[in-house]
Amino acid sequence: MTEDDAFVEHRKLIVAGSGISGLSAAIYAGRSNNEPLVFEGDEPGGQLTLTTEVENYPGFPEGISGPELIQNMKTQAERFGAEIDHGIVEDVDASDRPFTVTMKNGDVYTADAVIAASGASARTLEIPGEDDLMGYGLSTCATCDGAFFRDEKILVVGGGDAAMEEASFLTKFASTVYIAHRREEFRAEDYWIDRVMEKVDKGEIEIMRNTEVTELHGTPEEGVDHVTMVRHPEGHPTEKLDDSETETFEFDVGAVFYAIGHTPNADYLEGTGVRRDEEGYVLAKGGRDGGQTATDVPGIFAAGDVVDHHYQQAATAGGDGVKAALDADDYLEDLEREEAASEPEPEPAAAESDD
Amino acid sequence: MTEDDAFVEHRKLIVAGSGISGLSAAIYAGRSNNEPLVFEGDEPGGQLTLTTEVENYPGFPEGISGPELIQNMKTQAERFGAEIDHGIVEDVDASDRPFTVTMKNGDVYTADAVIAASGASARTLEIPGEDDLMGYGLSTCATCDGAFFRDEKILVVGGGDAAMEEASFLTKFASTVYIAHRREEFRAEDYWIDRVMEKVDKGEIEIMRNTEVTELHGTPEEGVDHVTMVRHPEGHPTEKLDDSETETFEFDVGAVFYAIGHTPNADYLEGTGVRRDEEGYVLAKGGRDGGQTATDVPGIFAAGDVVDHHYQQAATAGGDGVKAALDADDYLEDLEREEAASEPEPEPAAAESDD
Repeated sequence: MTEDDAFVEHRKLIVAGSGISGLSAAIYAGRSNNEPLVFEGDEPGGQLTLTTEVENYPGFPEGISGPELIQNMKTQAERFGAEIDHGIVEDVDASDRPFTVTMKNGDVYTADAVIAASGASARTLEIPGEDDLMGYGLSTCATCDGAFFRDEKILVVGGGDAAMEEASFLTKFASTVYIAHRREEFRAEDYWIDRVMEKVDKGEIEIMRNTEVTELHGTPEEGVDHVTMVRHPEGHPTEKLDDSETETFEFDVGAVFYAIGHTPNADYLEGTGVRRDEEGYVLAKGGRDGGQTATDVPGIFAAGDVVDHHYQQAATAGGDGVKAALDADDYLEDLEREEAASEPEPEPAAAESDD
Repeated sequence: MTEDDAFVEHRKLIVAGSGISGLSAAIYAGRSNNEPLVFEGDEPGGQLTLTTEVENYPGFPEGISGPELIQNMKTQAERFGAEIDHGIVEDVDASDRPFTVTMKNGDVYTADAVIAASGASARTLEIPGEDDLMGYGLSTCATCDGAFFRDEKILVVGGGDAAMEEASFLTKFASTVYIAHRREEFRAEDYWIDRVMEKVDKGEIEIMRNTEVTELHGTPEEGVDHVTMVRHPEGHPTEKLDDSETETFEFDVGAVFYAIGHTPNADYLEGTGVRRDEEGYVLAKGGRDGGQTATDVPGIFAAGDVVDHHYQQAATAGGDGVKAALDADDYLEDLEREEAASEPEPEPAAAESDD
């Protein structure tokens, strides 16, 4: 804490993140009387708010929009006593108990337990032109920005579900959607590949396999003008720039959408002792019994895309968020029992202890 | 296969069970073009159909009835190509590929992959009177049978969420609801304990701690007349029947509802090599990467209450069902690639192989 920092209050449970996993945790934590305080983070509602139509969250046969599903869960969490607030967790100090949670604006909270449900953020290519053009023709969110590029050629970069979904969606606006994927094969669900292939047959989408973007050209005023691309018949052309089979070419597009994966948001856990993998994903305990969402630090739990680098679905984030709330509740109940046992009657001086 | 057995067809994927986990798996498996065939089992819709109001499944702020949530998921699964059929899986033969799946009625299917989502069934006490009175005053489902016992004294046995929920619900009908729990402390969520305590304050519920039922008295014609109970101040009285502090007494009640947990339904996996724990729960792989729902037998996956002896929530069963479908899809895609690789061109005779 610096002297500018202001202590606000103590909470039993702070949830960092207000996506599906954080809100699912908040619903259960509210019902367990743990009065969770949920901080929305810098992407309130998480990734799902960037999705127009969620068709595969079990329970909504006609689909539901991402923002509506998130709003439902917020209402549900608040109904059971969760408080949802603006704020970005910047640091968790686990050197003492309760934890000290410092916010980006300098506010300081203490908490008996923390659930890290801070998700992951869209990855970028780190190529020239990116910093200047992000938000000016370059986007990581088709549903947010697609409508700005009517009758333009739009390039989608990626080969997973998100890329297929964004490409399909963008056909509503684009003259043609191009999908550039660095390999031959897509990682996406068959469902999405089929939908894209239908649109390829109709001429709405063109697929550029084994192709990567190496530079974005344009200006913030005029947007993206064209991109530089490389292609190699065996894929991953940027790793083979000197190969004679690698061809470089310029390609005219009016907008570029990245759909190339995510980076977990968990830097605030640095120094706590919570272990993360080389990509930054939190290593939760897993297993098949209770405590699956426990981290290496007792009292810090983690769920959703900040842990899960594999499934990354709304339903799996929700299920794991529920597990985190139940694990945190077990922890908090143990803590209360210990405190109750150590407080009421002064122990005889020489009572034996395991400490 | 006996000679009465009839081969019906081959399927890519068979899902055993139509509760939350089975249907969530079916939604995703349908979208992955794996054309899942879901067998409903002997409790179509699973445990959730026995719940009037589901308040904690994320996404429904006003709650949703269990049967409605299940119906939504069935519709959703069918929309994406799942087929849902009556039938109880009796045996899976994993000695050869594809698997042979034999149904209780003698029908035989083959399948490339199987998802065990067959849940768990209500546990009983195995005490005298139980077999005669089950369905005649003794029940494991308050929402199914509560309304038959208006203005009667009703005894609920158990101390977890289900017991609290059933007891609360039964106050609608009963003159008084009694909760008999073998220990002092309840395992239930605070939310449910609070609701029960409100009803205790109003005189609608009475709690009998450290108390167990040892015999049910009555007739199928007249229903339950009374029960024999034992109580010990330190709990678990049936383990202390000879203790001088254990008291035995008769107690008049018009109905008894068991809410004492569940036994997993996985006997059809016997002989497959799928490992289970001492209670019969399937040992899925778990962990933090892909393949969390894999069992010891490649191609057999498991999710929901047949695996999860700890969290047992609709949202966790749903999330794990989705994982199972994604894991099964990875397996099936590998299988297809292997088959495609081994079929088209006859290999040179002496091709080296790792087999």
